[in-house]
Amino acid sequence: MTQPIEWTNAGVRMLDQRRLPAEVVYHTYTHYREVAQAIKEMVIRGAPAIGIAAAMGVALGVETSPAQDLAQLENEFAAISKVMAETRPTAVNLFWAIERMKRRFAELKAAQGTPEEKLAAIRRGLVEEAKRIHAEERALEEAMARHGAPLMPKSGVVLTQCNTGPLATGGIGTALGIILTAVAEGKQLRVLVPETRPYLQGARLTAWELKQAGVPQTLITDNMIGHFMRTGQVGCVITGADRIAANGDTANKIGTYPMAVLAREHGVPFYVAAPLSTLDPSIPSGDQIPIEQRAAREVTHIRDVPIAPEGVPAANPAFDITPARFIAAVITERGVARAPYEKSLRKLLESTA
Amino acid sequence: MTQPIEWTNAGVRMLDQRRLPAEVVYHTYTHYREVAQAIKEMVIRGAPAIGIAAAMGVALGVETSPAQDLAQLENEFAAISKVMAETRPTAVNLFWAIERMKRRFAELKAAQGTPEEKLAAIRRGLVEEAKRIHAEERALEEAMARHGAPLMPKSGVVLTQCNTGPLATGGIGTALGIILTAVAEGKQLRVLVPETRPYLQGARLTAWELKQAGVPQTLITDNMIGHFMRTGQVGCVITGADRIAANGDTANKIGTYPMAVLAREHGVPFYVAAPLSTLDPSIPSGDQIPIEQRAAREVTHIRDVPIAPEGVPAANPAFDITPARFIAAVITERGVARAPYEKSLRKLLESTA
Repeated sequence: MTQPIEWTNAGVRMLDQRRLPAEVVYHTYTHYREVAQAIKEMVIRGAPAIGIAAAMGVALGVETSPAQDLAQLENEFAAISKVMAETRPTAVNLFWAIERMKRRFAELKAAQGTPEEKLAAIRRGLVEEAKRIHAEERALEEAMARHGAPLMPKSGVVLTQCNTGPLATGGIGTALGIILTAVAEGKQLRVLVPETRPYLQGARLTAWELKQAGVPQTLITDNMIGHFMRTGQVGCVITGADRIAANGDTANKIGTYPMAVLAREHGVPFYVAAPLSTLDPSIPSGDQIPIEQRAAREVTHIRDVPIAPEGVPAANPAFDITPARFIAAVITERGVARAPYEKSLRKLLESTA
Repeated sequence: MTQPIEWTNAGVRMLDQRRLPAEVVYHTYTHYREVAQAIKEMVIRGAPAIGIAAAMGVALGVETSPAQDLAQLENEFAAISKVMAETRPTAVNLFWAIERMKRRFAELKAAQGTPEEKLAAIRRGLVEEAKRIHAEERALEEAMARHGAPLMPKSGVVLTQCNTGPLATGGIGTALGIILTAVAEGKQLRVLVPETRPYLQGARLTAWELKQAGVPQTLITDNMIGHFMRTGQVGCVITGADRIAANGDTANKIGTYPMAVLAREHGVPFYVAAPLSTLDPSIPSGDQIPIEQRAAREVTHIRDVPIAPEGVPAANPAFDITPARFIAAVITERGVARAPYEKSLRKLLESTA
């Protein structure tokens, strides 16, 4: 499986997702500012992958820093973190990853040793921490896939949404990771891939990943889901999640909610796959989840070509909310939660891994 | 309101819909083969508009024919009709219009008069018949709009699908004609326009027509309908129809069925606007309506730009079926039908206009 990011001896290596599927181009970044720029320009995207990239960017900055003493390095660290934090201001994983690097820095600084030893330990230790964040993400997704794969049908068509595969996460993926695992275990699945306007993550990225993996697929436009549901061609639906409220209401990529309503109408199970970090117990229900409104240009243009008359107003909500009552199960790294979610999700959250 | 086609003294004048919304270009065709080519290449599209174009093409061919006697003209007429019939092999209105021209030809041939008088009467009469087909279509759509406009809310947002305006019909339009009429009568409506992938008739044509008419609109991608429904922003849905079965099940542009399911989920009325010629009493239910499968390239490419990896299979059903139980009313030129449709539609069909 192609990985979007890797720590190498030569630097941080990234697959340029902006150029997929037309071209497969890798960049190796040797300066943290290049990593920051890559996050900003969406060379890499997907919340978990952004977190890994930010951690590796911080590690790269510290490793290559010319700082001669601890105070200098600490100043540098703060400057590097600030640059990283300013790349994608709404990505929660980004801040989480930077915070974790900050904590590790403090731990290593507080450890025993001469200043020179500490300087070397921090440089080495932050690289290790970034790699550990990546490894933990991978392990978490594999656990999720172990819990989710048994829910997939033995054969038939699975409908998904957007891109939730390795490109988005740095591991095996969330919803797509479950599908890929089920296929690897011998289930005969075909993936129904909606193109996912406006940004076309389905057509550009999911279709590319499935092609790489040799998994059968059918690409459709987003408005074809009703036809495939009504004609009995969909065995189950599985999507990721951007935020899950305490009651199980789920925010995910725009177009998810119509899938859930159609799935219920046709008795098709609708699953959500998400790490427990997606759960926000401070938000009681989906009505309190803010919906990001993105630029109209993503709707009025497709890959920079105008498709509508100039000046026509367009709306661009990036997410929609699927109420918990439409969700057959939420698949997490610690197990599968079922309704009532208020209780089942809290239980998973409070359990030890 | 911009018309897609017009009979002028200089020839058949058409708006080139392929170039909308970027450019507004008219062509005036002086030979029937040019009209046939224009239909084939989708300069004009939409079932009613294609019927009008075919009739005008036949009339133009006969009017400009060098035939010196009736037998020659009759041969020419057959050749012209054949060329017209081969333009879009699945368009019912096309064959209907050609048949009607054929009938008129036979009537005029059978009338009193010298051969010279008949030759002149046929040339003049077929032009009149083509214009009459256009005028009848306009009158029919106005009647439909009169029946449908009262069903529109006094204010708020109306969701539609694809393009059902003047460009598609040669008149005021079907579903969009009702919206335009309601606005002209003072209702404060905003139209929610889904782009309608794969062919983008919503973004390219409906958005253009609404902009021309000065009606407020919001363009969205097709997968945003759930968000607008769930947040209570849609007052009603109104779409056209490509074929209606005896029981009221309706085939319409792909993406219509998800709108209907979401509308019912949120208590929003879902209306279908269609002339009674759309009703096919020989088909008992939607399950017997064949679904045209179009080229995968329309899905894998947008306006000729590839959006997916090469070789990824794509499905492209052009229509979906909305079962009658989701439809609040079918608006026709003879009145509004409500459930049970088997009975109400038959009654309208058997009534005199």
